[in-house]
Amino acid sequence: MQPNRNKQKYYKKPTKTNPEDYIYGIRTIIEAVEANRSINKILIQQGLAGDLLRELKQVLKGTQISYQSVPGQKLNRVTNKNHQGAIAFLSPIEYQQIEDVLPALYEKGRTPFIYILDRVTDVRNMGAIVRSAECNGVDVVILPSRGSAMINADAVKTSTGALHKVPICRSFNLKFTIQYLKESGVSVVACTEKTNDLLTKTELTGPVAIIMGSEEDGVSPEYLKMCDKKVKIPMFGTIESLNVAISASIVMYEVNRQRVIEQETEG
Amino acid sequence: MQPNRNKQKYYKKPTKTNPEDYIYGIRTIIEAVEANRSINKILIQQGLAGDLLRELKQVLKGTQISYQSVPGQKLNRVTNKNHQGAIAFLSPIEYQQIEDVLPALYEKGRTPFIYILDRVTDVRNMGAIVRSAECNGVDVVILPSRGSAMINADAVKTSTGALHKVPICRSFNLKFTIQYLKESGVSVVACTEKTNDLLTKTELTGPVAIIMGSEEDGVSPEYLKMCDKKVKIPMFGTIESLNVAISASIVMYEVNRQRVIEQETEG
Repeated sequence: MQPNRNKQKYYKKPTKTNPEDYIYGIRTIIEAVEANRSINKILIQQGLAGDLLRELKQVLKGTQISYQSVPGQKLNRVTNKNHQGAIAFLSPIEYQQIEDVLPALYEKGRTPFIYILDRVTDVRNMGAIVRSAECNGVDVVILPSRGSAMINADAVKTSTGALHKVPICRSFNLKFTIQYLKESGVSVVACTEKTNDLLTKTELTGPVAIIMGSEEDGVSPEYLKMCDKKVKIPMFGTIESLNVAISASIVMYEVNRQRVIEQETEG
Repeated sequence: MQPNRNKQKYYKKPTKTNPEDYIYGIRTIIEAVEANRSINKILIQQGLAGDLLRELKQVLKGTQISYQSVPGQKLNRVTNKNHQGAIAFLSPIEYQQIEDVLPALYEKGRTPFIYILDRVTDVRNMGAIVRSAECNGVDVVILPSRGSAMINADAVKTSTGALHKVPICRSFNLKFTIQYLKESGVSVVACTEKTNDLLTKTELTGPVAIIMGSEEDGVSPEYLKMCDKKVKIPMFGTIESLNVAISASIVMYEVNRQRVIEQETEG
């Protein structure tokens, strides 16, 4: 994963930040982390030092919350208040752990249907994917802790509330998560143009996790290598690719189409 | 068609208007119409009268350009220049006539694949649908002259240029257009929740025109009545509906899936 690849995009966002979306001051952030408040990410001013910062880094250990060192002006762009060199972006949703969610799905007799979003950085695309996921009975959506669109009020709005209905998990290391899914009997399938295997001809009825890649360069090569299957949506035009939310939704449709046919054949 | 239903939405837009997107002054507009410049729509100030206005209305006859009488403040919101009571929004694309496009498709041996967008008012949805249409080999997209998102620079951008590649037709009267399509051997199919017929089980391999409805209330009842078929995308969640651009793209995928299978079976 190259967490810095989307730096430029990320830094554009704070101009739109709503006051309710962040908290600031190291002490306040430490208390929020200890109170298990849902935090998307923490920005820490470069060069900051001291006991409080050490304490913050200590309480972050073992959580899924990532932090990033940035120049002071980035923090100033988020707020003109006295942020003391640290700002934490709050999440409107509670994140879950895939290690908790997946066993529960198997216990309920579900055939797991999972989406992994590898660096989907556009908040609207993120919201649209989760809306479609809810409509299509997707069980859980997994995001990397870094390099993904932040789940904020805009994302919740675009999802028409689906972000409150579909469990969202964060992964500190997608490689570990993909490995965990494979070992748990889930077939990991990348949606990519870099294959000749058509979605229409690929069997997808078992437990499955679909990886969607970034808007710019698709699924990362390191995850492509780990996948059990790659599928390509058939294309009939001259434009290279569909929007990522649309691609994700077409794959959801196809998985359900195949599953329903299989059920009917069995029944 | 209820052209006024989306008035409120429409009037929100001019605040974002780019200077290059419109021209003003009745004489200027008359000249543009006579020069066959591509115009999305004309706003005329309520109470305006005179020979020039009569001349404008005369040159508009027989064109596909619609005009609308609005209070003066609506015009002032578009520009603070001396608009003389008339503003015309220019289109970045040339519109075509379905009566020209359809026979040409048959002559080329194509099985026509057409989309009709009934009051899709969001510019991004419009752009996204046309992008998917290009990727899926859709031959032509038909829009009503009124009550549709305007094809402007934002729409072209969201379409990633597809609006310059897929022929776009305007219809002054969608009822006539639907009737024309049916008489020309095209099966007219509404994508709607108001049916029990699933997309997955509906045969769509012949000449087909898919009608997508507005983001708010779907396909108009008057067009639903005229359709040869209605199809519903299978839903597995609690949220009522998918985004219209996503629904449109799923139907495109299914039509192509069926067509390819049929070709392979024949071949």
